[in-house]
Amino acid sequence: MDFVYFCAVAPIFLNPMIVKNAKTTTIEPKVTLVGAGPGDPDLLTIKGVKALQTANVVLYDALVNEALLNYAPEDAIKVYVGKQSGNESFSQELVNKLMIDYALNYGHVVRLKSGDPFVFARGYEEIDVAESYSIPTEIIPGISSALGVPGLQKIPMVYSTLSESFWVVTGTNANGEISPDLHVAAKSNATIVVLMGVEKIKEIAEIFKSEGKTHLPVAVIENGSSTSENVVVGIVDTIEELIQEKKIKSPALLVFGQVVSLHPQFNVIKEFYSIMAQEE
Amino acid sequence: MDFVYFCAVAPIFLNPMIVKNAKTTTIEPKVTLVGAGPGDPDLLTIKGVKALQTANVVLYDALVNEALLNYAPEDAIKVYVGKQSGNESFSQELVNKLMIDYALNYGHVVRLKSGDPFVFARGYEEIDVAESYSIPTEIIPGISSALGVPGLQKIPMVYSTLSESFWVVTGTNANGEISPDLHVAAKSNATIVVLMGVEKIKEIAEIFKSEGKTHLPVAVIENGSSTSENVVVGIVDTIEELIQEKKIKSPALLVFGQVVSLHPQFNVIKEFYSIMAQEE
Repeated sequence: MDFVYFCAVAPIFLNPMIVKNAKTTTIEPKVTLVGAGPGDPDLLTIKGVKALQTANVVLYDALVNEALLNYAPEDAIKVYVGKQSGNESFSQELVNKLMIDYALNYGHVVRLKSGDPFVFARGYEEIDVAESYSIPTEIIPGISSALGVPGLQKIPMVYSTLSESFWVVTGTNANGEISPDLHVAAKSNATIVVLMGVEKIKEIAEIFKSEGKTHLPVAVIENGSSTSENVVVGIVDTIEELIQEKKIKSPALLVFGQVVSLHPQFNVIKEFYSIMAQEE
Repeated sequence: MDFVYFCAVAPIFLNPMIVKNAKTTTIEPKVTLVGAGPGDPDLLTIKGVKALQTANVVLYDALVNEALLNYAPEDAIKVYVGKQSGNESFSQELVNKLMIDYALNYGHVVRLKSGDPFVFARGYEEIDVAESYSIPTEIIPGISSALGVPGLQKIPMVYSTLSESFWVVTGTNANGEISPDLHVAAKSNATIVVLMGVEKIKEIAEIFKSEGKTHLPVAVIENGSSTSENVVVGIVDTIEELIQEKKIKSPALLVFGQVVSLHPQFNVIKEFYSIMAQEE
């Protein structure tokens, strides 16, 4: 912990939040939400590295690359608080409680979250809880998987006449359901990225089919930006079958839109349809 | 240029693109699109730093922080190719031509773009041109202003019951017009981020008013993440006046949605309406 820095920005005698731990060291609580990016550790920002370097405690999520913990001081406390399906041992409430306890007793807590902390990551909930204890907070944005993962596959969010906007929707909202927003999105010309939706591909494809978009290009990317990345490209009509065939599992994201036709794997599909058209 | 690295991944005798410059040095062309993030130089990724460190040439845009050029080798060529309004000297065609010429004659060209290279940045066009010359390309995503700038202001893209999705739309498409997608977006419950729209705030506010959303919270953020950041928070009905009053100019982004009500500046507005309601 860099006391000189903290003293310079907030003199100790003015801060009502200072408490003492068992070792009677002066503690200045702070919570920094850091976006770790989609998986590749080099997709962390420099600002994220600097935050980790001054961490007393790191609370990190399931999809965060553990290599990033090496940026934190050796004596910093590193706690895994990832949720695993079927394992309720790290509820949001418990994560919040740990975050507050560690901040009050150890000082600077870095909450390291995969992707961006404000894109379906409950980042605001955590900021809100910390501020309710008068603990100063800071946000360090991260590369969101929603944009970064298709980007690494050379699928742009917008392109020329193919798309002028993009819409990021959750496939699993607080009620465990597909967001109703997807029904509006499917009517639009936007590029649509669905996070946490691969397990509901049948229902999601139905939404697009009901809008007559059976031939709309779709990409599915599993473990984006990591060494185990797996990509499938198809159209609405075939995507469920392709996901089963290639055994794509969560975490994976779906991209619906004409921009997907720019992916090299889509050339095969274009050729198939052009042969079909000639035969008709 | 790290020849050992390049030789390891693509042996020179196999590569048809190798040309020789006047000094008869062996050249291996490559184009890397790097997202520089919204302005704060520490919002560049580690991967972006590494790309700059191996650059022979850096072509950088108007909104890129020039401090980032220091990551490139001292003898790398650094060329400003930013477009300025009313100045057509750096057309996309000229940028493409420079990029190809530099890659063929000097090797690794880093195209340093503000935000993310695939979010309204013509990144795909440049990748496409480079690949048409058989020049290898790579994408390094950046923090998009669309998400990162509201995030730094502690405005989340989604939150609890306030929003389950976000939609990023351009206020100035290839025809210089507001994207027609905004008319669909204004009907939705998504958080809506409009890039390049501040100069058309009157028309954009009208679109939301026509959907009856006169009281929808709006944030306008100018020069996001930089030292000259300027933020205004209001509602659809008042935002045009506030922008004029605070003299907010491009580059600025607009955020429409209930999530904006979480911003501390919005408390004043909430109090005003609560007093109004009591007086009625």
